[in-house]
Amino acid sequence: MSFETEFSIAWGDCDPAGIVFYPRFFYWFDTAFQRWLQSHGLSQAILQQRHGILGTGLLDAHADFRAPVRDGDTMVVDARIDDWQAKRFRVAYCCRRGETLIAQGHETRGWLKIIDGRVRAAEIPDSFRALFD
Amino acid sequence: MSFETEFSIAWGDCDPAGIVFYPRFFYWFDTAFQRWLQSHGLSQAILQQRHGILGTGLLDAHADFRAPVRDGDTMVVDARIDDWQAKRFRVAYCCRRGETLIAQGHETRGWLKIIDGRVRAAEIPDSFRALFD
Amino acid sequence: MSFETEFSIAWGDCDPAGIVFYPRFFYWFDTAFQRWLQSHGLSQAILQQRHGILGTGLLDAHADFRAPVRDGDTMVVDARIDDWQAKRFRVAYCCRRGETLIAQGHETRGWLKIIDGRVRAAEIPDSFRALFD
Amino acid sequence: MSFETEFSIAWGDCDPAGIVFYPRFFYWFDTAFQRWLQSHGLSQAILQQRHGILGTGLLDAHADFRAPVRDGDTMVVDARIDDWQAKRFRVAYCCRRGETLIAQGHETRGWLKIIDGRVRAAEIPDSFRALFD
Repeated sequence: MSFETEFSIAWGDCDPAGIVFYPRFFYWFDTAFQRWLQSHGLSQAILQQRHGILGTGLLDAHADFRAPVRDGDTMVVDARIDDWQAKRFRVAYCCRRGETLIAQGHETRGWLKIIDGRVRAAEIPDSFRALFD
Repeated sequence: MSFETEFSIAWGDCDPAGIVFYPRFFYWFDTAFQRWLQSHGLSQAILQQRHGILGTGLLDAHADFRAPVRDGDTMVVDARIDDWQAKRFRVAYCCRRGETLIAQGHETRGWLKIIDGRVRAAEIPDSFRALFD
Repeated sequence: MSFETEFSIAWGDCDPAGIVFYPRFFYWFDTAFQRWLQSHGLSQAILQQRHGILGTGLLDAHADFRAPVRDGDTMVVDARIDDWQAKRFRVAYCCRRGETLIAQGHETRGWLKIIDGRVRAAEIPDSFRALFD
Repeated sequence: MSFETEFSIAWGDCDPAGIVFYPRFFYWFDTAFQRWLQSHGLSQAILQQRHGILGTGLLDAHADFRAPVRDGDTMVVDARIDDWQAKRFRVAYCCRRGETLIAQGHETRGWLKIIDGRVRAAEIPDSFRALFD
């Protein structure tokens, strides 16, 4: 299953080279995932309340940048979960402007709890996984 | 004349209090203005090329915060230009979530050029003003 | 009483005009205030725990921009509280690069609590005010 | 050869989970690299002027997150270049708070020029590489 969402690139997302300052792509990755949760009636706040987790926090993140985007461009981001482990899952992202591949990457997210004062990954409930399968 | 645009509030726009980190409102003010330019086929880059300006740069900015917004909220921003001077203009913004007033504020923007190595405000062409009257 | 702190301007703080994207100034205003709290052994998190507040949240913010700053510049921010009310206070900021005035502005901060599910300003304890007088 | 620099984590860098919103780590990676350039009297602007490049733009970026950082924490970032190719190089980053490993990652940067209207990687001059060897 996958989720598609759209972002419009703003002047304030770009750096003096006139193209997007690359950390913004990770903001869009994260925001695409949050919107996906919202499409299921969920959010980090709701997951915290229901499951007592800190959230679906980041274990690692990666992006390949293929072509620049600029102020005024519209970018479509496609998200899909391409790996499930007991305590973590991987979300793959693909960003396009029209037919042009702009960037692709992933986030590995853990089902993070505070256990004995430390942040640790815990077992992901089946009910959560079922939403994305 | 006024311009209306919409933003969805993301997890990454919020701070540990769970509400938007206030500088983001100014990002939305600026982005609303850039989208307004785009609705006229303009952008900072096009203004630079056509008029040799640095851009419609900021002279001052202000916001009143009335109610918080959070991850997943949708906010409508209304922009209107409520004052024109020879070398500057003032854009007033009003942000609402449904019927609730979230924030209002303004930006004063100068028609900025680099003159003798310094950033200075120059006369705004009538053709630019006419687009917003 | 006043507090002085320093920021170095980064490439990622600047927009395609090559100068700081103005909302970043409000990030620096806020960060200067948080550092001031830290110089007294405080933070938003500690204020929340001790006083049950949401934090010293923003009621309004303003900035005048006088001269641009760019990647690699160092900016000194001076903060002082220039007005105390029962439930709010105003922090005035002055930003300089060497002798050059870059920007000045203020934040009005309320002693915000969640009361009956709504964010409201409450009375500021004398012990807090005493730290800044 | 390596370069070390320090960042203080601000309230505005953190998300509603109370820890740094992860895209900020890439801002710090990038800023560490820009400061390294500055330590050699360089900057993206100077490289553009001297070499006619768009800059040392990003081809890919990665980070592993090991432990959270919060408002008020100080983080030391160590940067070193661990791979040189004809048209690109890889900068490895290691972020620590005291003895605690917070995150590590890398950026692959290309020597980017606009050639025939497209962004492409060009040969890195020996004089540039020599600075970091």
